[in-house]
Amino acid sequence: MFEKKVLPKKSENFSEWYHRLALEADLAEYAPVRGCVIFKPYGFSIWEEIQRRLDQKIKEFGAKNCYFPLFIPERFLQKEKEHVEGFSPELAVVTIAGGEKLKERLVVRPTSETIMYDAFSRWIKSWRDLPFKINQWANVVRWEKRPRIFLRTTEFLWQEGHCCYATEKESATETLKALRMYESFLKENLSLVGIAGKKSEFEKFPGAKDTFTVEGLMPDKKALQLCTSHDLGQKFSKAFGIKFLDKQGKENYVWQNCWGLSTRVLGALIMTHGDDNGLILPPKVAPVQVVVVPILGKNKTRVLKKAKELKERLKAFRVEVDEREKVSVGFKFNEWELKGVPLRIELGEKELKEKGVTLVRRDTFEKFFVKEKEILGKVTDLLQELQKSLLKKAQKFLKENVREANSFANFQEKIKQGFVLAFWCERESCKIKIKEATQATDRCLPLNAKPKRGRCIFCKKNAKYQWVFAKAY
Amino acid sequence: MFEKKVLPKKSENFSEWYHRLALEADLAEYAPVRGCVIFKPYGFSIWEEIQRRLDQKIKEFGAKNCYFPLFIPERFLQKEKEHVEGFSPELAVVTIAGGEKLKERLVVRPTSETIMYDAFSRWIKSWRDLPFKINQWANVVRWEKRPRIFLRTTEFLWQEGHCCYATEKESATETLKALRMYESFLKENLSLVGIAGKKSEFEKFPGAKDTFTVEGLMPDKKALQLCTSHDLGQKFSKAFGIKFLDKQGKENYVWQNCWGLSTRVLGALIMTHGDDNGLILPPKVAPVQVVVVPILGKNKTRVLKKAKELKERLKAFRVEVDEREKVSVGFKFNEWELKGVPLRIELGEKELKEKGVTLVRRDTFEKFFVKEKEILGKVTDLLQELQKSLLKKAQKFLKENVREANSFANFQEKIKQGFVLAFWCERESCKIKIKEATQATDRCLPLNAKPKRGRCIFCKKNAKYQWVFAKAY
Repeated sequence: MFEKKVLPKKSENFSEWYHRLALEADLAEYAPVRGCVIFKPYGFSIWEEIQRRLDQKIKEFGAKNCYFPLFIPERFLQKEKEHVEGFSPELAVVTIAGGEKLKERLVVRPTSETIMYDAFSRWIKSWRDLPFKINQWANVVRWEKRPRIFLRTTEFLWQEGHCCYATEKESATETLKALRMYESFLKENLSLVGIAGKKSEFEKFPGAKDTFTVEGLMPDKKALQLCTSHDLGQKFSKAFGIKFLDKQGKENYVWQNCWGLSTRVLGALIMTHGDDNGLILPPKVAPVQVVVVPILGKNKTRVLKKAKELKERLKAFRVEVDEREKVSVGFKFNEWELKGVPLRIELGEKELKEKGVTLVRRDTFEKFFVKEKEILGKVTDLLQELQKSLLKKAQKFLKENVREANSFANFQEKIKQGFVLAFWCERESCKIKIKEATQATDRCLPLNAKPKRGRCIFCKKNAKYQWVFAKAY
Repeated sequence: MFEKKVLPKKSENFSEWYHRLALEADLAEYAPVRGCVIFKPYGFSIWEEIQRRLDQKIKEFGAKNCYFPLFIPERFLQKEKEHVEGFSPELAVVTIAGGEKLKERLVVRPTSETIMYDAFSRWIKSWRDLPFKINQWANVVRWEKRPRIFLRTTEFLWQEGHCCYATEKESATETLKALRMYESFLKENLSLVGIAGKKSEFEKFPGAKDTFTVEGLMPDKKALQLCTSHDLGQKFSKAFGIKFLDKQGKENYVWQNCWGLSTRVLGALIMTHGDDNGLILPPKVAPVQVVVVPILGKNKTRVLKKAKELKERLKAFRVEVDEREKVSVGFKFNEWELKGVPLRIELGEKELKEKGVTLVRRDTFEKFFVKEKEILGKVTDLLQELQKSLLKKAQKFLKENVREANSFANFQEKIKQGFVLAFWCERESCKIKIKEATQATDRCLPLNAKPKRGRCIFCKKNAKYQWVFAKAY
């Protein structure tokens, strides 16, 4: 029960390290339903803080929250051809309800376009109703053949924003605005970065005109899609009949986009920042930002009293005092390190005598002795520094792991080390062959990419752009 | 499009009034899936505010949020006999997933006891793990034969708290503490009251030892269960093997309770406080607490500027400025009344000249002219008064509509007018006959009820308690 939990080393067995850490740090566990997870309180509270912070940004974006049904009549899904083809293999279907076989089967939502857009066709009538922006926080289900905690789960939690506009341009502009919203959210709050770009024809959302992504790079040099933003054009508005009367009284179909971010980012958080000792959580989303570990000697009462005073003094932060008596101080240190708490405060005889505390940073293990009256200021500074420092590290890692390849031999070598920028003719045949040879796929075309004259890394035919390639989760 | 929405009168056709109001006030609409509703932004934001406020209370209660899977393996549900019998007729069942027929069918959670308690049996080992308290905000599905917006819907949103304790007494005490938490929450935030009591054997939660409720009385004199709190005893812990080692090293089954409150309270909110003009929302949960309606004459620019200044001055509240130009002031007044906004501010030439504003209370339509520098204070006061006044009205209504009956003839008369207190022998045969004759059922035994010597209102046999009877939703 009180044994130290020993993880595999991150550098030696990344996959096992990730998996064990997610479980041992008490974030989540696999449920007895294939591919589903139980979000335990510690893991779920990170998600709650992500929700709270992203929700503010979404409201600033102008979207209002609402809630649509979990079940979608099968015929709705069939209205947009690419959409139903894309999602069919992943659907969970309710065929029996209330003790009877259903006349029309119900699909458990894999995403809510179809049920929402049916309603939009009733709600939107005039240019005055536009832009129309809503958001939903919900659970969705996509049957997962190869589940992996947080990264690929049959049920996951997410938000999905859905907007309608009067013009093609507005929809396109706002699709990118949503992507930039995510990008800055991930950067400021989760210290996560990636390459923002456009997906190719073959990787885009089923039914979308254009799909955009922020593509993160994990320490094992595999790409992870951190969020997506889709410009739907008029594909769905035509399928569902979402029309409006413009200022001239003419009837038009609306232009739409949608965008989402899911509990998958918890996986990115673990992988990007964690180390051999466990999680390292960015202070902004850490359920416990500071843990006070009292070192209980003969002055037990005084030490505990001081620890509680300290919690009060630091009430602007999420502080926990670890008062447990049956476990050693060393065990406590290990456990809170495993759980990624950004700052530890040690408080014992020595500290009492010298009227201060010892602060320890989770990421660098640096120690600071701080006098009592300077504690609040120092904690504030250190948490900010740690947040920034995780970001810098992530930025550095990304920067160092984007390489250009000029020949396929070169590509095959560099792709093992991270993102590779390579000219691609944008044909499916080359995509397939590149994947067969390297397991890597086109991840995105960076937003800032400029057209050049190049030759496809595989077939040597003319190619206009350097795409980002990587193996992917 | 800009026609005034005319509701049936609350006093003349309550049922139709309720139904139309829920739709016309833009709270929700029926979904194309039988018994499901779409929570539109205005309705959903009331629920969000309820969530935010109740979540704080739940955290004070000591429960931590988590999230369990939507799907429950059918065999889990079968572990507790009464539980499965109670829920079987209402289940939605997934039989196909990922393109294949499932070997084990999955039930969409009607409530989460079974999937949670399976995990508890792995998580709880020792007395040190107790009390163990978690909470989940989630969607649940119970197939509904007679759906009614907010009151009975196939899918609804709720929170479910689930706790484990070392002793029977602690579980029982905390079951009531949870009930009291709801009671004060409903009173302080939603201005809703009811009779707190215990359910009879025949009305309790399938699998519970005791079920407690706060039973509200709606204006049509029908009872509505506002929340429930269940003492589960050891029924589930024995079915799922949730055991702990006590301080003496002896193995025991835990004692459990669970408690929930759902989007059904939105129905109670509409019915209790609304009037012929529409909703009246308690300020604490109103999405818009104050609406500023600028009366645009020739000083349009100055009036609008002033309206925005006012919004800034009142930024401690949720304020909306209705700047629409294509609709009349009268239309705006009607619309915001329909939507139940507690306070309206009228701002036109007259107000500009006299350096003040006109405030109008939604509940009483009282008008107040207030000088500029007194606005913040007056708005604060009026919102508090309105909140209290709705509560007082609800309390008065409840008090006036609890009657005692001493004969069955008397019972049959009084039951049409609200709650009736009557001795009951607690036998099912009498319960059934009373229901056949009057449609009324035993709602609860008030918590403060004292044993007396009485005779059953129906069979005249000995009865110990006066129970609360009513027709119910």
